[in-house]
Amino acid sequence: MLHFDSDYMEGAHASILARLAEINRIAMPGYGTDAICRSAADKIRAACAAPNAAVSFLVGGTQTNATVVDALLRPYEGVLAADTGHVAVHEAGAIEFGGHKVLTLPQENGKLRAAAVRQYLEDFYADANHEHMVAPGMVYLSHPTEYGTLYTAAELTQLHETCQDYHIPLYLDGARLGYGLAAAGTDVTLPVIAACCDVFYIGGTKVGALFGEAVVIPDRARIAHFFTMVKQHGALLAKGWLLGVQFDALFTDALYTKLGAHAVTLAMRLKQGLLEKGYRLAIDSPTNQQFVVMENDRLRRLDGQVTYGVWEKADENHTVIRFATSWATEPHAVDALLALL
Amino acid sequence: MLHFDSDYMEGAHASILARLAEINRIAMPGYGTDAICRSAADKIRAACAAPNAAVSFLVGGTQTNATVVDALLRPYEGVLAADTGHVAVHEAGAIEFGGHKVLTLPQENGKLRAAAVRQYLEDFYADANHEHMVAPGMVYLSHPTEYGTLYTAAELTQLHETCQDYHIPLYLDGARLGYGLAAAGTDVTLPVIAACCDVFYIGGTKVGALFGEAVVIPDRARIAHFFTMVKQHGALLAKGWLLGVQFDALFTDALYTKLGAHAVTLAMRLKQGLLEKGYRLAIDSPTNQQFVVMENDRLRRLDGQVTYGVWEKADENHTVIRFATSWATEPHAVDALLALL
Amino acid sequence: MLHFDSDYMEGAHASILARLAEINRIAMPGYGTDAICRSAADKIRAACAAPNAAVSFLVGGTQTNATVVDALLRPYEGVLAADTGHVAVHEAGAIEFGGHKVLTLPQENGKLRAAAVRQYLEDFYADANHEHMVAPGMVYLSHPTEYGTLYTAAELTQLHETCQDYHIPLYLDGARLGYGLAAAGTDVTLPVIAACCDVFYIGGTKVGALFGEAVVIPDRARIAHFFTMVKQHGALLAKGWLLGVQFDALFTDALYTKLGAHAVTLAMRLKQGLLEKGYRLAIDSPTNQQFVVMENDRLRRLDGQVTYGVWEKADENHTVIRFATSWATEPHAVDALLALL
Amino acid sequence: MLHFDSDYMEGAHASILARLAEINRIAMPGYGTDAICRSAADKIRAACAAPNAAVSFLVGGTQTNATVVDALLRPYEGVLAADTGHVAVHEAGAIEFGGHKVLTLPQENGKLRAAAVRQYLEDFYADANHEHMVAPGMVYLSHPTEYGTLYTAAELTQLHETCQDYHIPLYLDGARLGYGLAAAGTDVTLPVIAACCDVFYIGGTKVGALFGEAVVIPDRARIAHFFTMVKQHGALLAKGWLLGVQFDALFTDALYTKLGAHAVTLAMRLKQGLLEKGYRLAIDSPTNQQFVVMENDRLRRLDGQVTYGVWEKADENHTVIRFATSWATEPHAVDALLALL
Repeated sequence: MLHFDSDYMEGAHASILARLAEINRIAMPGYGTDAICRSAADKIRAACAAPNAAVSFLVGGTQTNATVVDALLRPYEGVLAADTGHVAVHEAGAIEFGGHKVLTLPQENGKLRAAAVRQYLEDFYADANHEHMVAPGMVYLSHPTEYGTLYTAAELTQLHETCQDYHIPLYLDGARLGYGLAAAGTDVTLPVIAACCDVFYIGGTKVGALFGEAVVIPDRARIAHFFTMVKQHGALLAKGWLLGVQFDALFTDALYTKLGAHAVTLAMRLKQGLLEKGYRLAIDSPTNQQFVVMENDRLRRLDGQVTYGVWEKADENHTVIRFATSWATEPHAVDALLALL
Repeated sequence: MLHFDSDYMEGAHASILARLAEINRIAMPGYGTDAICRSAADKIRAACAAPNAAVSFLVGGTQTNATVVDALLRPYEGVLAADTGHVAVHEAGAIEFGGHKVLTLPQENGKLRAAAVRQYLEDFYADANHEHMVAPGMVYLSHPTEYGTLYTAAELTQLHETCQDYHIPLYLDGARLGYGLAAAGTDVTLPVIAACCDVFYIGGTKVGALFGEAVVIPDRARIAHFFTMVKQHGALLAKGWLLGVQFDALFTDALYTKLGAHAVTLAMRLKQGLLEKGYRLAIDSPTNQQFVVMENDRLRRLDGQVTYGVWEKADENHTVIRFATSWATEPHAVDALLALL
Repeated sequence: MLHFDSDYMEGAHASILARLAEINRIAMPGYGTDAICRSAADKIRAACAAPNAAVSFLVGGTQTNATVVDALLRPYEGVLAADTGHVAVHEAGAIEFGGHKVLTLPQENGKLRAAAVRQYLEDFYADANHEHMVAPGMVYLSHPTEYGTLYTAAELTQLHETCQDYHIPLYLDGARLGYGLAAAGTDVTLPVIAACCDVFYIGGTKVGALFGEAVVIPDRARIAHFFTMVKQHGALLAKGWLLGVQFDALFTDALYTKLGAHAVTLAMRLKQGLLEKGYRLAIDSPTNQQFVVMENDRLRRLDGQVTYGVWEKADENHTVIRFATSWATEPHAVDALLALL
Repeated sequence: MLHFDSDYMEGAHASILARLAEINRIAMPGYGTDAICRSAADKIRAACAAPNAAVSFLVGGTQTNATVVDALLRPYEGVLAADTGHVAVHEAGAIEFGGHKVLTLPQENGKLRAAAVRQYLEDFYADANHEHMVAPGMVYLSHPTEYGTLYTAAELTQLHETCQDYHIPLYLDGARLGYGLAAAGTDVTLPVIAACCDVFYIGGTKVGALFGEAVVIPDRARIAHFFTMVKQHGALLAKGWLLGVQFDALFTDALYTKLGAHAVTLAMRLKQGLLEKGYRLAIDSPTNQQFVVMENDRLRRLDGQVTYGVWEKADENHTVIRFATSWATEPHAVDALLALL
């Protein structure tokens, strides 16, 4: 069986497992107060060119999004997101559980346009009833988006400026950030993100770690008592060094970028093969997720041979499916998949 | 100045003020445990042909919606509503404050279609990821809608059946219910509503009372401990009889219906006059709210002479405005308004 | 039947009913944006010697407490209160519903001591684990307390200074404030309260109004967007002028103080009579609530003749009960009660 | 340096690391839907003699407590706990964040007495105002308690019966359950717990796993849609098999019990040694946590040689400290510690 249904189907890069084994019986203080977490944070600050950043390590994406949103918003504020944003759809109401509304705007290629955000903010404050409504208190982006697409540095800058004009923070969900940083032609780097965003996270779960997301607050004074909010959200790992050691490994010798590049290279090989075979892509993604419009009959013939993600019905006879490569995908698996199709 | 901007601009019907004055110095037990509240509840049960209904009196609409929604939903559930529904737009996030998502569907003439609700529910449970998503746990309607339109008894029945098929409750927000019951040609009566809805409220604030909404739970076993939830929401009035006496008056000699009919008659006179003068209505409303497409220049000439609600921009030169009549509108004011236009 | 069980058993002072009748058919803008609310707010600012205060009118005490607490606290913070405080016991979890813990300290005569608050704060920050705990983010007082007792100006000043030292706000629940201001020997005035508290409310429901509480924020910049938070809590009255007109009347010709004095005078007459008859008071209250230790046999003989509040079991044969006078108590009723005892 | 400050200072038992390495590159479906999680759940069901139990794997204790409490309670209900209970003190308000009050009772040796719980429930429903108060909706225990003490089977049965009489669930927090099960003389086994509790969790983080807690719901119908609530709380691990494989190892060949016994044996050796040296224990704990009253001068001489937990001030010259052994403690470390003291 070939597995292309997601990028979180395998454990961790070998170097991470090795590091975990090495330190397994060394006693460490809890809750991320250990030296390895400090080292990992230092490396991330350096990679982001953000020397004053606060770096916190959380276990998963939904808890990270909920904790950051609750930390940034006042009770009467909501978070602006694309209607396909993870916080809007696939977090089982974690944002609402924290008391906040997700204010959605139509996505374009999975992205939120700065112009649309600005228009929303203008319209909101022009509405005579806006004090009876949920105020847009921050903007949420995912990069890469849920459709595998990427913002440009210029687009991020425009979003940043829009947020600045309205004095609201910009937050970037980087669950798959490694695959975005490694895409061909992107001009979005960690320092660009750190310069544009008030908070962002660097995803480990989908990019080589067993689990873990590194939250970066470039200006550490931006959020007070984040530690206690992480605890309140049940997102504080007792053995915090388990997170630290993974990010320390990922940010040693640019492993994070290399793992991203591996997956993207294979995704591009897959994409090229699909196009050569005449398949139609639902969207033009430069990252590790490829969305293909498949005939339903064709799909049925793949059963038992390959796993993939079912995205949405295209029409009566076609379905959009997702093939995801990852840091762990073997090149021969891509070849085998193309041979099947 | 003529006032047509809303239906909550004046105090209460004279008979209500009189009753309040009569009982002003009679000592009563608090929190709605008094005999007047019992009398009012009995009259409402009779009017609804719902002998086993629980009837509670709350102060305002937003707190009523929030309390009912929080009482009906489990934490992971959301409320399905039209995207123009009051809970979706104009309650400052009261539903989200209680931890629940408002799941919106496109409105049609302000209404939620049973077929659209059924499709949403079908699609939701067909989605392989639905356990990662907010489950649709109830349906919210407003009747009349925010656009002044009405459901038919057949439509309510279809919505009821759809909800029954999915074992979720149907809730009707009757902030302006009196104006709906009095509309020409409607076949929706209080007993029809009581038969179709798991919970609904009869609005007093906009229909002749100083304030107050009567929540009806036709099967009183449907919600346990509603009293404590009302208290927890800060919606329990210490001097509960102030609410009871108002609803007792409104449900004596069909005053509620008469007040509704008064406003609707004047709204129809206004509508007829508008059409005769060649104005275009944005929507065909049989109730007390009339939405008119007006030239911006024309509107400016009304300044200082009449107040109205600004609804939305129609195009560069036109705006949709709302004229609302109420139980308190004087016939000559409608004539004066028509003379102005 | 004599009624002494609470101070919210009757309607409103005659002048309030008269004002409501006068304006009943005058069209007004909603949500407290009218001229009467402005007038009432001006009078309250003057009475408090707080020219920059924001004044908002809400309907009831629990919703006021919940809204203010939620507006003042960050998500990880709790509110320090006496263990007998209304927010701790009798609000059905309204504070927790908003996500906040009530951190309780033992009451002394119903009061919170500044020294105990300071000790709590010191101990909290000295605890190595305090970042895993709910941070004390504000202090809640009631004045008069739930036991009818009063703070002195010196005590309020000490509490204020303690709060200032720890940069947390002080909030005073004045549900029965009128009865506190009118007590013999008190040096706590509205300007003293405004000088010591970051937020407080002046209770109307129990002191001559039909309903209503006036929230005062002496430095209006202390809370941004309070209006929207009031709306989100379902605490925004559509016909806001109903609240404004009541407080305008209460703060005209010092009616509020006079109503308080009336009740306190009668309470002192009752207290004197009780002591002369040899009854033991459970606490020495200078305000309208008197707590008496009664033999259970004696109590049974009162059944059907007088209503009172049952406070707590004193021992097997005795019960602490409460007699409350109010702005509406008739002098002859106190005499009749004393004759019965 | 000797480390006795907690039981979560080291990684995982070697067999767990080995299993993680073995499966590291095997593709698995996410969110706990894999075969290893099923195997682990089967083993836990067998160990608990609870064939119909639902078993879910979460990452940490605070998130587990919050998710279970939110799943069991209605909005107006709170959780009864000892005032030293973890949910009451050290979870940064996670229970309140979910909208619920922690109702505390005085602990006795860290335990909640069934008689005290029953008295609370009786008093609550006897209080005429109880509908204005937070209803006790469940009981929370920790076993071992935060003081290392244990319930007996008879005590658990009494608590169970008390809860049954009031139709509220009993929940047991087993963060250190392995150390309780291994204590000398205990008659509390997993089947006893499964018979008495509506929900409980078996702690992995502190007993040999890298992280992880196994929630057991003996009657799986007790909580519907627990999966979605776990997701909503941000407690659903993408790579769920990381949890499954750890519990599968812990419940193979009784490893969980053996690890518990190892720590308890060393704790008893330490306790015996402390007593022989004349130290006074603050509490008589049969588990891995030992609380010792130490002279402050003596403590200072330990600096730099041993880490321990500071519990509380005993008096001006003495402090209560905690020494915790764990599955990972080396026998010679205990000897070295005793040699130091």
